[in-house]
Amino acid sequence: MASPKVKLTPLNKLFSILKAELKTISGESRVSVKNSVNRILSKDIFAKYDNPPFDNSAIDGFAVNEGSRPSSETFFLLDGMLRPGFSPGIILKKNEGIKILTGAPVPHGATRIIFKENTKEYDQKIHFVQDSDRENNIRLKGEDFKKGDLLFKKNNKIKVTDLAALIGSGNTSIPIFKPLKVGLITTGNELNPSKKMQSESFIFDTNSIPLKSLLENWGYSVVNIGLVGDDIELLRQKIFENFNRVDVFITTGGVSTGQEDFVSQLLKSEGQLINWRIAIKPGRPFICAKLGAKYVFGLPGNPVAAFICALIILRPSLGRLGGEKSWFKPFSFKAKAKFEKYKRPGRTEFLRANLNMEDGYVSIFPLEGSGRLSSLSWSNGIVELSEKEQNIEMGDLVEFIPYGSFF
Amino acid sequence: MASPKVKLTPLNKLFSILKAELKTISGESRVSVKNSVNRILSKDIFAKYDNPPFDNSAIDGFAVNEGSRPSSETFFLLDGMLRPGFSPGIILKKNEGIKILTGAPVPHGATRIIFKENTKEYDQKIHFVQDSDRENNIRLKGEDFKKGDLLFKKNNKIKVTDLAALIGSGNTSIPIFKPLKVGLITTGNELNPSKKMQSESFIFDTNSIPLKSLLENWGYSVVNIGLVGDDIELLRQKIFENFNRVDVFITTGGVSTGQEDFVSQLLKSEGQLINWRIAIKPGRPFICAKLGAKYVFGLPGNPVAAFICALIILRPSLGRLGGEKSWFKPFSFKAKAKFEKYKRPGRTEFLRANLNMEDGYVSIFPLEGSGRLSSLSWSNGIVELSEKEQNIEMGDLVEFIPYGSFF
Repeated sequence: MASPKVKLTPLNKLFSILKAELKTISGESRVSVKNSVNRILSKDIFAKYDNPPFDNSAIDGFAVNEGSRPSSETFFLLDGMLRPGFSPGIILKKNEGIKILTGAPVPHGATRIIFKENTKEYDQKIHFVQDSDRENNIRLKGEDFKKGDLLFKKNNKIKVTDLAALIGSGNTSIPIFKPLKVGLITTGNELNPSKKMQSESFIFDTNSIPLKSLLENWGYSVVNIGLVGDDIELLRQKIFENFNRVDVFITTGGVSTGQEDFVSQLLKSEGQLINWRIAIKPGRPFICAKLGAKYVFGLPGNPVAAFICALIILRPSLGRLGGEKSWFKPFSFKAKAKFEKYKRPGRTEFLRANLNMEDGYVSIFPLEGSGRLSSLSWSNGIVELSEKEQNIEMGDLVEFIPYGSFF
Repeated sequence: MASPKVKLTPLNKLFSILKAELKTISGESRVSVKNSVNRILSKDIFAKYDNPPFDNSAIDGFAVNEGSRPSSETFFLLDGMLRPGFSPGIILKKNEGIKILTGAPVPHGATRIIFKENTKEYDQKIHFVQDSDRENNIRLKGEDFKKGDLLFKKNNKIKVTDLAALIGSGNTSIPIFKPLKVGLITTGNELNPSKKMQSESFIFDTNSIPLKSLLENWGYSVVNIGLVGDDIELLRQKIFENFNRVDVFITTGGVSTGQEDFVSQLLKSEGQLINWRIAIKPGRPFICAKLGAKYVFGLPGNPVAAFICALIILRPSLGRLGGEKSWFKPFSFKAKAKFEKYKRPGRTEFLRANLNMEDGYVSIFPLEGSGRLSSLSWSNGIVELSEKEQNIEMGDLVEFIPYGSFF
């Protein structure tokens, strides 16, 4: 299906070009930690408090003062119980012990917390029955992090797993880059949102909603500019009408080399072309240009190609524009191929793939046509075959990227 | 740190109990496809149209009628060009050809689309220069799916990658189970939302926001009921005040076996206990009960334990209540251990882990204490050591679950 006579940019080269070209365009803002997932830090974040903030018990048991002896066996039991949320208000002397609950501040003098199950209690004394527990079961103040420690570096994206450390370090709001506003434009006379039925020539727009969903999942706000048919004037008009409302434009369709491919025509003639036509499959006609001060990324019109291109090229590119420093690299690993394939060298291929967790083998969708919408749904990730790879035999190790890496 | 004398339920047994116990509690509703990600289908979904809806060209080139010969070499070139969005309005006779763009409907009579690059055009004729292209470059009507085909089964969760097939099949809205309303209650006198500083005994609540973020990520709406200190009366009151506002309750803290553990006390004395105390680390004191008609899941108070328990136990449990049929199993794979560990048999351990994509080795956080908030942030997934596993040596294959599997 591919035409061999066009000069194509290898994917790694495209990435080098984009890395050099794309810098943060977002201004700064602040956000409450509770709304910070997927936001990108505009400054380093330091701990405002120690964590834990005080020595506390890791278990329910008895806090004891063993003195300098490695292990006393009998302790005089003080009245009361130390609870989380209250100051201990006592000092344990040598050979004294007191009941303590998990999370309660450890009293001065305590050298260790022992499990209730490892003790016998009589005559107002706790008799420690030695067991295999070699820990002192005390969580020390600051053992996790200390006030002033650098916790998160500028330009990193906040993940759900970062929230506890942000909150526990006393950061209630954080400095971020404003999320990108992405203008989404679809092209193609074959799409017509006013038609409710398909016909001999009309098809449903299967690009806008998946791309919008993806972009929102990445934390961006999407301005759905809509359809411009195959009309270069309307495209120009829609871009300039929305020029100050959005930070970056994304288009679908119209990016091949033909005279009808007016997205690439407009970007070539009126913009500053950054790159066009990539040695990847699917997604070859991808284009990137700057129109005035705004970047425009032209995805292919084919929905599978547009989706894969968005994952592979837009995710890192938009990340950069939105404040990420490192070039996003999706989480991937090697899996055994349950397929054979001949691939020509010189281009990177992304195959819709399904990893079977039971046997660790990855299958590819048996039919390559990128018009097959069901292939996206069938797959749980992508096999990436690099530029150099050629023959893949059954059982060879191939790079598998689960879709979860992108969301 | 663990106490060995309590009888604990193995994780697989807990899963069996929960699978048998938990059925869909959500009522049905409909949602627009554009808002359907993470929603669970309440009915099977069938295609309303063929995809592609008509035979169309996979490339820019010439549609030709080769007749019955395997490959003609010269075709009479008709005027015009076939474009997407317009009916061809012609019939190609034998040895005729016409320009066609990608996505345009293929005219009657066309047997193949040939690349422009493989032709020479003169004397109103196209001269086909044979190349290695063996495809006819026609996407056939219905080759992806046909009207009436079953596309998605009831009880499946809609993913971003399902949207294109939903839209392309003419499904603009879909029947779903209403997303669960989850009531979130935190316990513990050591938490105090009115305090802006940490002190000798007070700590920040590092559970509510991460859990809320996780639950919302899973598509649920969260009713943040707030903190009840260590007060069984207040807990009872808050549950009953919100009883008809939420579908399921989640608590943190107060689930151990001590007399102070009033969440488990309340659930044991007034509810129907489903299970309590699991052979997992972290997360041992997890409790599940039914209070009247509502399920209550009691997570441990420790934020790392609560978070891991939420991923491992709540994700599948809530999935079931919300309409999923299959028991959610996170995406995982084998990776080489860059650590040594002795683990006692009989319990499942979840270690905060970091997979290095460069070398494929997985490290574990060097310190086990589950008070370490920075460990969640440091990790990019979890190593699961099963009940039976014991000694792990450097280089052994262990099960790694990337966090992306849960979101």
